[in-house]
Amino acid sequence: MEGLLTRCRTLSALAACSLRHCRYIIHKCYHRAPGRGQRLVLSRMFQPQNLREDQVLSLEGRASDLTCKSQRLMLQVGLILPASPGCYHLMPYTVRAVEKLVRVIDQEMQAIGGQKINMPSLSPAELWRATSRWDLMGRELLRLRDRHGKEYCLGPTHEEAVTALVASQKKLSYKQLPLLLYQVTRKFRDEPRPRFGLLRGREFYMKDMYTFDSSSEAAQETYGLVCDAYCRLFDRLGLQWMKARADVGSIGGTMSHEFQLPVDIGEDRLVVCPSCHFSANTEILDLSQKICPDCQGPLTETKGIEVGHTFYLSTKYSSIFNALFTNAHGESLLAEMGCYGLGVTRILAAAIEVLSTEDCIRWPRLLAPYQVCVIPPKKGSKETAATEIVEKLYDDIMEAVPQLRGEVLLDDRTHLTIGNRLKDANKLGYPFVIIAGKRALEDPAHFEVWSQNTGEVVFLTKEGVMELLTGVHVV
Amino acid sequence: MEGLLTRCRTLSALAACSLRHCRYIIHKCYHRAPGRGQRLVLSRMFQPQNLREDQVLSLEGRASDLTCKSQRLMLQVGLILPASPGCYHLMPYTVRAVEKLVRVIDQEMQAIGGQKINMPSLSPAELWRATSRWDLMGRELLRLRDRHGKEYCLGPTHEEAVTALVASQKKLSYKQLPLLLYQVTRKFRDEPRPRFGLLRGREFYMKDMYTFDSSSEAAQETYGLVCDAYCRLFDRLGLQWMKARADVGSIGGTMSHEFQLPVDIGEDRLVVCPSCHFSANTEILDLSQKICPDCQGPLTETKGIEVGHTFYLSTKYSSIFNALFTNAHGESLLAEMGCYGLGVTRILAAAIEVLSTEDCIRWPRLLAPYQVCVIPPKKGSKETAATEIVEKLYDDIMEAVPQLRGEVLLDDRTHLTIGNRLKDANKLGYPFVIIAGKRALEDPAHFEVWSQNTGEVVFLTKEGVMELLTGVHVV
Repeated sequence: MEGLLTRCRTLSALAACSLRHCRYIIHKCYHRAPGRGQRLVLSRMFQPQNLREDQVLSLEGRASDLTCKSQRLMLQVGLILPASPGCYHLMPYTVRAVEKLVRVIDQEMQAIGGQKINMPSLSPAELWRATSRWDLMGRELLRLRDRHGKEYCLGPTHEEAVTALVASQKKLSYKQLPLLLYQVTRKFRDEPRPRFGLLRGREFYMKDMYTFDSSSEAAQETYGLVCDAYCRLFDRLGLQWMKARADVGSIGGTMSHEFQLPVDIGEDRLVVCPSCHFSANTEILDLSQKICPDCQGPLTETKGIEVGHTFYLSTKYSSIFNALFTNAHGESLLAEMGCYGLGVTRILAAAIEVLSTEDCIRWPRLLAPYQVCVIPPKKGSKETAATEIVEKLYDDIMEAVPQLRGEVLLDDRTHLTIGNRLKDANKLGYPFVIIAGKRALEDPAHFEVWSQNTGEVVFLTKEGVMELLTGVHVV
Repeated sequence: MEGLLTRCRTLSALAACSLRHCRYIIHKCYHRAPGRGQRLVLSRMFQPQNLREDQVLSLEGRASDLTCKSQRLMLQVGLILPASPGCYHLMPYTVRAVEKLVRVIDQEMQAIGGQKINMPSLSPAELWRATSRWDLMGRELLRLRDRHGKEYCLGPTHEEAVTALVASQKKLSYKQLPLLLYQVTRKFRDEPRPRFGLLRGREFYMKDMYTFDSSSEAAQETYGLVCDAYCRLFDRLGLQWMKARADVGSIGGTMSHEFQLPVDIGEDRLVVCPSCHFSANTEILDLSQKICPDCQGPLTETKGIEVGHTFYLSTKYSSIFNALFTNAHGESLLAEMGCYGLGVTRILAAAIEVLSTEDCIRWPRLLAPYQVCVIPPKKGSKETAATEIVEKLYDDIMEAVPQLRGEVLLDDRTHLTIGNRLKDANKLGYPFVIIAGKRALEDPAHFEVWSQNTGEVVFLTKEGVMELLTGVHVV
């Protein structure tokens, strides 16, 4: 039997490598440069911007629904497509950006000792009844019954599940604490008014971390540690952020902070003290409060989008599920907990909201779906001779700058003018656009390089391009 | 305002880097080797195997539920924990293995031009009513209503959603075809009898690809292309597999194949023809058929676990949702479709099922959560002096073999004997285990190296270890 299977496998493997198939594979998705690597070409991308005339038309028909810049831009260029209210299809560029963001989050969470787990979305009602949140969460919970009539909700957050999980691990020792467990999964919330695209959806990706400590002091130290990791994350993304004291809401606990990106369409009203940097969500202050509680200076007001939220929970959940650890004296004690959320798809949309112009998407450089777009001359134009030169540049980049493999697109729609393709590239916000125009025919060739995040345009030789791109960090 | 925010950010960043915090961060998750990198240590892992006496005890209490080897082993060492029937928490080691598998799948799908998207789990009832599957799928669909009474199911598969998505893109040109869209997301199926752990769950990860072509011939060529990619995938995982003709079931279409891993607990009965390699699921054959339909030779029977399934759909879905493309003559035609599933969590469990011994987990080498486990001597034993030598080896591996960063665990539970820790390492199935025993004190030091997938044990100098590990490919 085994011999037979091995033979089957070998035959199939041979068939898979037949010349016909190899050729087919290569031609389907890439241009093949003779004797060199493969080129990623724009015309093959399922990027509805290629069809934009029609797309924009149909969007205009429902323009009144488009309530913020990021939603409008993301729909226009086809980064997201509506599936149902508050639910979106993420298209290929967006998936790439989300995956990059998840890698940055993984790095920061693992740098502080976070261990990644994955909990089911189907969350049994009995867990939520134990904390009374089955009733408290009201209509925000999406609920269902299975074929046996058993009740579940689709988890919007997982305090119950993770605490029950840790409680099931008997003999958890103080030596294993602090324990930092996190996941990056889809969450569900039946928003009364889903809107702003990925900013307030009903189905979204969230990073949620839960920490377990041996004492209140240790738990608060861990709380600070996670907050600092959040600060580093937003700094790496190049975003302006604020950390504001906040209400604990339905999660509960005794201390809470929100991480906010300041922006006009933000749904949260915040106060900041310019003197001592006190900052808070107005929901925790007396509405008429105009004086900083820390330094008595005058408070100013701003708006923000909440992109992260941290809670010190103490033993609120561990006492319900009996999540215990054994201390150095062999005694069983309740674990002190914290929980920490980051809205993954929301961070992406919020970043686009604050960085973009009215017409052009701008990404945090690290999250851009592709780092470089290369634009060869229009077919039949007088620069046509530069086509080979810029294709060679593309291949040389692939060879000399390994971290950019898979990150450089060739805009092969050469029936369009350079100007039209540059307009598209500008709209999509590739951090670097390299154009082979007239000066690519000089000796040595000069390429027009747009650094879109700074707005700078320079002419560089091949060596200059290589030097510039070698410094590009890709996550 | 902007100036203020920048200041806030800078202050926080400074605070984050205060010496106290930096020290704290490092000590929490890693041993710090002076002046060198950081070491990943086993004692900090939330790996319930550390608590196994108790865990095994509680598992024995419900031993009768454990119906197959992979489920029993994965529960025993704490790779998965039950959340509700057919739903499991994936623990840190398992998340690492799943993420590696997803990377291999991404590579193979993108090599044939696949573009990754992400569709919501909440799938509107009207899509399923359009294809009559709202009724046909019966109780396998998990259904719910939102706060407005609108009906949804939790998508077990996404033919409806993706066809509606492509249909919404007017002016899709034949030049953009074949279009291969895929996603790797959670799927839901209300199994009547969830069992075998991750092999037959109610919530699971699946890779589903949908292809769109301009003609029946092109669609069948694409079908072959995706099947070949599946073959390469299973070959890379080192798994024996069979490709069997299969029934189209509730998905529909006119041609279908299953990818099966042959194993006794498999729920599918297959026939194979040793002469011409014909293979089929018995569900599509006359039960009494003993003769190969292709070569009239005798058929033999075997069992398998279905890990992949491919369907040529023709225009079954595109005709319902009017998914059109424009051909070279400007005419609108229905796209020819295929769909292709891979059970991600199922492949992992099935691989463990076929590769493991009764007591010890074995992974496809490429998917092992960590490639190497390093075991220093027991504290207080006469080999204690080798501790520094093996810690230096660890640091040297990190420096000399960059692809293994994050892949090498130091089993710092030095209160346990080498033998006990080797037993654990053997059970968890790290591909390589490096032990510093008596011979580590020789000059030059010799380390005992277990290659667990081959069962080979050799003594190697540091140079020998480096040479061996440099050849380890990590995905």
